[in-house]
Amino acid sequence: MEYIIRKAKKADMSKVLDLIVELAIYEKEPEAVEISVEDLVQHGFGTTSEFNCFVAEVEQKIIGIALVYTRFSTWKGIVLHLEDLIVSESMRGHGIGSALLDEVIKFAGKLGVKRVSWDVLDWNTPAIEFYEHKGADVKRDWDVVHLNEEGIKNYLAKLDACKS
Amino acid sequence: MEYIIRKAKKADMSKVLDLIVELAIYEKEPEAVEISVEDLVQHGFGTTSEFNCFVAEVEQKIIGIALVYTRFSTWKGIVLHLEDLIVSESMRGHGIGSALLDEVIKFAGKLGVKRVSWDVLDWNTPAIEFYEHKGADVKRDWDVVHLNEEGIKNYLAKLDACKS
Repeated sequence: MEYIIRKAKKADMSKVLDLIVELAIYEKEPEAVEISVEDLVQHGFGTTSEFNCFVAEVEQKIIGIALVYTRFSTWKGIVLHLEDLIVSESMRGHGIGSALLDEVIKFAGKLGVKRVSWDVLDWNTPAIEFYEHKGADVKRDWDVVHLNEEGIKNYLAKLDACKS
Repeated sequence: MEYIIRKAKKADMSKVLDLIVELAIYEKEPEAVEISVEDLVQHGFGTTSEFNCFVAEVEQKIIGIALVYTRFSTWKGIVLHLEDLIVSESMRGHGIGSALLDEVIKFAGKLGVKRVSWDVLDWNTPAIEFYEHKGADVKRDWDVVHLNEEGIKNYLAKLDACKS
């Protein structure tokens, strides 16, 4: 299968959002996606750029993305975080995910960071096997913690109640 | 115990690094800390600021920190990430960790983000109980993945080898 990997443009963000939603469905949380095409354009291509995105194209159609940004590790300094690596389900098995990850690691090399990090669902065996094959270390003893919008609201309300 | 919580200053970074190292020892990875005081000053107080840090002081001595930065979630947009919440071991049990977390959540409220995220070790039961009590959701099915410096180097070497 012939494909190209390139940096994303503003005009790609609608297709990028489609893939984000497709992944959320696979991860059993389709309602969790609250972002809009405008948000992606604003934060990726505004005065400050909050992320970098690479896309994979087959016959001028975007069928995969890798979205990255830098974080600050108190152990390693600036590191690169891979927020999403998505290949549309019907397009898997042709090395496109691998090619997108290559681009991410090349980007990390250019930045000179000491780590690339990302998160994986512990039941997503194909993904875990793929990442370990690439030399990554799946840290099964580290869990992700979220305080969501409602949690933040409740937390702040409690703080307010204690003040009065 | 009387303490104050305030924003960190450049001059605090040496003490901040001491606490980062103390936590790394607790997490059984003391050699993993490669960052210097200069790195912390440069990235926290340079032309761009890669993180915000709050400190807890008892009798003018820094005994706790919370270090945060924003990330880009493809589901929620800009979110706040808590990289480290540290209270020196001898100072635990006085509500200082709680006061630092309060400051972080107030900061999240000001930014208007839809999520605060962080990572926790799955064997760190006191931390997990503390976070859950605060309304956070410990996502036990999400694991953290790292490709470290050597992994990046090997990855890039393999890519180069395939090209030639």
